[in-house]
Amino acid sequence: MKQREFSCPVPDAGLYRPCTLIRPDARILAACSVVGGKEKQGPLGDCFDFFNPGDRFGQDTWEKAESEMQRMAMAGVLGKAGLGADDVGVLFAGDLLNQCTGSAYGLLGYDVPYLGLYGACSTAAEGLLLAACFVGAGYARAAAAVTSSHNAAAERQFRTPLEYGGQRPGSGQWTVTGAGAFLVTRDDENGGACRPLARITAVMPGMTVDRGVTDANNMGAAMAPAAESTLCRYFAASGTCPADYDLIVTGDLGWEGGRILCDLMDTHTLRDGRSLSVRDKYNDCGMMIFSRNTQDTHSGGSGCGCSAVVLASYLLPRVQTGQIRRMLFMSTGALLSPDSVRQGQSIPGVAHLLCIESPKEGE
Amino acid sequence: MKQREFSCPVPDAGLYRPCTLIRPDARILAACSVVGGKEKQGPLGDCFDFFNPGDRFGQDTWEKAESEMQRMAMAGVLGKAGLGADDVGVLFAGDLLNQCTGSAYGLLGYDVPYLGLYGACSTAAEGLLLAACFVGAGYARAAAAVTSSHNAAAERQFRTPLEYGGQRPGSGQWTVTGAGAFLVTRDDENGGACRPLARITAVMPGMTVDRGVTDANNMGAAMAPAAESTLCRYFAASGTCPADYDLIVTGDLGWEGGRILCDLMDTHTLRDGRSLSVRDKYNDCGMMIFSRNTQDTHSGGSGCGCSAVVLASYLLPRVQTGQIRRMLFMSTGALLSPDSVRQGQSIPGVAHLLCIESPKEGE
Repeated sequence: MKQREFSCPVPDAGLYRPCTLIRPDARILAACSVVGGKEKQGPLGDCFDFFNPGDRFGQDTWEKAESEMQRMAMAGVLGKAGLGADDVGVLFAGDLLNQCTGSAYGLLGYDVPYLGLYGACSTAAEGLLLAACFVGAGYARAAAAVTSSHNAAAERQFRTPLEYGGQRPGSGQWTVTGAGAFLVTRDDENGGACRPLARITAVMPGMTVDRGVTDANNMGAAMAPAAESTLCRYFAASGTCPADYDLIVTGDLGWEGGRILCDLMDTHTLRDGRSLSVRDKYNDCGMMIFSRNTQDTHSGGSGCGCSAVVLASYLLPRVQTGQIRRMLFMSTGALLSPDSVRQGQSIPGVAHLLCIESPKEGE
Repeated sequence: MKQREFSCPVPDAGLYRPCTLIRPDARILAACSVVGGKEKQGPLGDCFDFFNPGDRFGQDTWEKAESEMQRMAMAGVLGKAGLGADDVGVLFAGDLLNQCTGSAYGLLGYDVPYLGLYGACSTAAEGLLLAACFVGAGYARAAAAVTSSHNAAAERQFRTPLEYGGQRPGSGQWTVTGAGAFLVTRDDENGGACRPLARITAVMPGMTVDRGVTDANNMGAAMAPAAESTLCRYFAASGTCPADYDLIVTGDLGWEGGRILCDLMDTHTLRDGRSLSVRDKYNDCGMMIFSRNTQDTHSGGSGCGCSAVVLASYLLPRVQTGQIRRMLFMSTGALLSPDSVRQGQSIPGVAHLLCIESPKEGE
């Protein structure tokens, strides 16, 4: 009964409470991914659009390198879609750096209305959710979502500088060096210059959940209950169950958090008895981006960039071709800061969900 | 020709480029403000809902005090509106602390879908803008926007701990200790339990603007060009001019930035010759919240909480009564971090705009 370590044996009935489920009319027109050297060497290495072996991207600080990745990702996605910055009505962006400077500086060159986000590693889904809602409501014809993380910048900000050579426990995760950018539209905004990658058919913003985990080297355990909360609410609200999806993928719970989420979901059923176990359909971007055997990243990848680049480079092309027809994509974030950990506070998590489906035939 | 110090003498024609102007159907149902001792002693002291003379709010750290202010503000606004957390479909929140922990921890007790923002001191307008867009599109019946800042937490994070007793130049601003919460609805969600404060009739997200200011003690100068950009684009897109409004109020440019904005706007006219000078209609929340003569805050108030508490406590009640019938409210944010300043980068600003009008008769 592994799950007893992390959850009560009787599932919390509140987890099925109806919640905000939005069905926007939106498509992901194009996506672009930029990664560092370690990500390029991983199992998905061939899928990424741009990479830089030394993670510096021609800049003299790690923080500026992160900004440069965002700039490149945005340039790349505009190029793929055949659109200019003028065509984009609003831009949602955020990252892990203090005061989200990766986004603010990286996207400064684009004259697009800018709404900054902070969702920790859930930012990719948060930005896509808001972009889908904006174009779905007709507020903008095209909206962009951009996010990033940089291993070296994150290490010195959240833990210790690389030069210190600190060791981490097996439950620790490796912040991905990467940036992802997405263009979301309602209609065929670019005159068919490219076929849309996917449709966003439902979105659900998550609630913050804190089950008392205080170990900042075990973010997976802190975030898994948030993913459980959003999944249960989504299945209850939509009337669907895991069997209705080809894939259920989380942002970056890693090997540790992914195992916990599967254990937690095993305890849940819908009122009509359908099981909510996700074990057969489950994967995690943090587990996919690095090789567990050869890359020594302990519990897998993490960071805003992790789910963004895996979605942009590996998942969406497979949704476009129909290899994955319908999936749930859920980025998960741990809303801690180094100060909150030092002050003894436990770690709240949040998980935002998107239902992503293949484009209709003829699109 | 004071404005030549900060802007080119020929106005940038790009500033009138059409931009995302959204006209949501949304009302501010209720608002609540929580402040510290210095704010209570200021000119608006009698207007605030809650205050704590020692700024500690019963907590043992400044960061926890900031979270507690957000919790109180959210509780207060729900109480005023006669709604429960269950009635709120989505919550937009953010603050100045690293990783926005003021919001994440402060609002953890409310089971409401949580979308975290980072817009620096523009967060109040950013949250209200998104809330108005969400309820306007029918995605939620009620949406909340919450933000905060705490002087002592901000000082030790961005500058030096209070105990250090550092001096600041005259252009420096004083981070407000305060939190504001707003409930936005489309229709009469609470069965008339309270009369709405105002209607949000137009919103415009701003672009990031960087004119090369590198002095982190002169945020007003860094943010004024962003306010200029958003104002010019709004007037061009809406076809209105400053004469059409009773008040044009910025978030927290302070005395220094407010003067610069007025100088910049003096250089602009619409194509039909109407002047865009805002001098006669202008005020700034950072100028309003503290007494310039007696409170020694140099260039005035700043921080996410500044525009939030002035709007919640002073401005909206006057919009409700019709004393102010139609105003432009624009929170301004400086998107720097201590690291970006240390790495020699200049300071981008952003300003988001709301057009706020009195409720219709009978509402």
